[in-house]
Amino acid sequence: MKLFITTLLASVCAISTAGANELRDKALDYFVPLPSTVPSVQDNPITPEKIELGKALFFDPRLSASGVFSCHSCHNLSTGGDDNRETSIGHGWQIGPRNSPTVLNSVLNEAQFWDGRAEDLKAQAKGPIQASVEMANTPEVVIETLLSMPQYREWFADSFPDEATPVNFDNMARALEAFQATLLTPAPFDAFLNGNIAALTEQQQQGLDLFIDRGCAACHSGVNVGGHGYYPFGLIERPGAEILPPDDKGRFAVTETVDDEYVFRASPLRNISVTAPYFHSGRVWDLEVAVQIMAQSQLGQVLPDEEAAAIVAFLDSLTGEVPEVPVPALPPETATTPRPTAEIVR
Amino acid sequence: MKLFITTLLASVCAISTAGANELRDKALDYFVPLPSTVPSVQDNPITPEKIELGKALFFDPRLSASGVFSCHSCHNLSTGGDDNRETSIGHGWQIGPRNSPTVLNSVLNEAQFWDGRAEDLKAQAKGPIQASVEMANTPEVVIETLLSMPQYREWFADSFPDEATPVNFDNMARALEAFQATLLTPAPFDAFLNGNIAALTEQQQQGLDLFIDRGCAACHSGVNVGGHGYYPFGLIERPGAEILPPDDKGRFAVTETVDDEYVFRASPLRNISVTAPYFHSGRVWDLEVAVQIMAQSQLGQVLPDEEAAAIVAFLDSLTGEVPEVPVPALPPETATTPRPTAEIVR
Repeated sequence: MKLFITTLLASVCAISTAGANELRDKALDYFVPLPSTVPSVQDNPITPEKIELGKALFFDPRLSASGVFSCHSCHNLSTGGDDNRETSIGHGWQIGPRNSPTVLNSVLNEAQFWDGRAEDLKAQAKGPIQASVEMANTPEVVIETLLSMPQYREWFADSFPDEATPVNFDNMARALEAFQATLLTPAPFDAFLNGNIAALTEQQQQGLDLFIDRGCAACHSGVNVGGHGYYPFGLIERPGAEILPPDDKGRFAVTETVDDEYVFRASPLRNISVTAPYFHSGRVWDLEVAVQIMAQSQLGQVLPDEEAAAIVAFLDSLTGEVPEVPVPALPPETATTPRPTAEIVR
Repeated sequence: MKLFITTLLASVCAISTAGANELRDKALDYFVPLPSTVPSVQDNPITPEKIELGKALFFDPRLSASGVFSCHSCHNLSTGGDDNRETSIGHGWQIGPRNSPTVLNSVLNEAQFWDGRAEDLKAQAKGPIQASVEMANTPEVVIETLLSMPQYREWFADSFPDEATPVNFDNMARALEAFQATLLTPAPFDAFLNGNIAALTEQQQQGLDLFIDRGCAACHSGVNVGGHGYYPFGLIERPGAEILPPDDKGRFAVTETVDDEYVFRASPLRNISVTAPYFHSGRVWDLEVAVQIMAQSQLGQVLPDEEAAAIVAFLDSLTGEVPEVPVPALPPETATTPRPTAEIVR
């Protein structure tokens, strides 16, 4: 009996080196390993000066009206690049409408936000700073704030050397994009794609195989394992209102096309294991439950437990190394820096 | 005429090398340069493991009930170790009663908080985590949170190797104290005290001389240029209610002694230039104004403008180099980690 079980386990579990290489070839039809250099972005040449400026801006709470929130508050590099809440808390303790997406590898997404309404990170950056439930600031006050600190004026001039008035809202967004473009997190899955087949455990390899065969990779593919393409949440079977709140119609708000009701951008899955809770509503905390909801709603399948577990193991292999970012020293305020305000303007 | 002015300026401004060395000797009667090593603290041997654990805890927003605030939120290393607000905003958008003091060099204070009610940083650390207007958490939930993450269990075991149940609220506070003890900021003033007299400009040297002669150094002395001793705010002349709100009686709340009404610990002045606004009420944003208020209320003097400016220049020499702290990678949550809550329990 013991021998039988051992043999059975061996035949189920063992993936030969030849098999692993075959799986790698199969995976390369769907996925691309992370680049080893900072990706270029549209209309924004990335320079070391811009990256440094963007890093300061990313960590600066004075971009918010209250002085409480920086970009880093809800896109925390310590906790997977997000805030680990269902939806974020912002100015005036207001609760935001959607789960905070990770900033890590976000430069690789086709478009930004759950509904893809910003074409890139520089368009995205202007949103939360002005949103009344997030940082609740205005471009005018942001620019007044930045201009009040000589060090920022110098950094902007260094970052945009050919411009007469380098301190402006667009350039702030460009610098933020430049810094965020550096936030790539190479993971065991990249090592596997690059030829180190031992980087994934056998269970992870089985999970990868299932991820492709069951159809997950139809939407979650490419360099960011998702992050491009728009699909209805509930392609086969619409999830309940607790997961898909009826009043958030997703991309419909962007395109006003009926076909886009409850349509969202396929989520990028890098670092998914460390960025609970899941979905735009943030209502699911358990990754295996999230995988089962996806299988049912998008593929019309109920996965056997061991298949779901193997897929979760594969998803763990997408957890990467966050670049080391020292907490930046920010310029001190001056007499002309606008004062923070806790007031809620509705 | 031009020659006369030049001669006059030279006689006013020039401090000879001999004079500078004399000033240094005089200053050494009042001040002590920062140590070059981490100070030891009571009942808490500082180890590299404890420092690393404390760093993670310091940056972990999951120590707060909402998951929004970490220690670093109000003691931000990017902005002088405080939050640059009059008083801090905490759980439920509640406004705290006093200005957030800098964490930098705080290990050198005789006691913690504006009224010195915590004898050291490990006693202090337990306050804001539980305060309903700050992080609004409970020791029970904090410990449940930490125990839910295997990586924290391991870090606590490494930091407190001889203890059967290392994950406890006291040890959390000890680790936080260990990390904070590393946050020393060597400044030009230290270089001056250590013998590099060129580290202070002539104006700064004049300011230092005035700081001693006018009587400021009577209270703001020692290694932290303050941070020990308790004095009434308004020793000679009580400032107005806009600066000294009548309902905050300072140390009286700790000792219940009438003599302690409106008594506060002398503020440590390192990094004062980058930690506006000033006083426990945070009502004054301009350092020169703050210096004049101090001169009037504590010493009964109105300083000539150039004396106040020289003292401010000297205070600038207390702005030090913040140690480089990489944003730490925090342990990911697990299924048993308590969920964040935005609810306000009064």
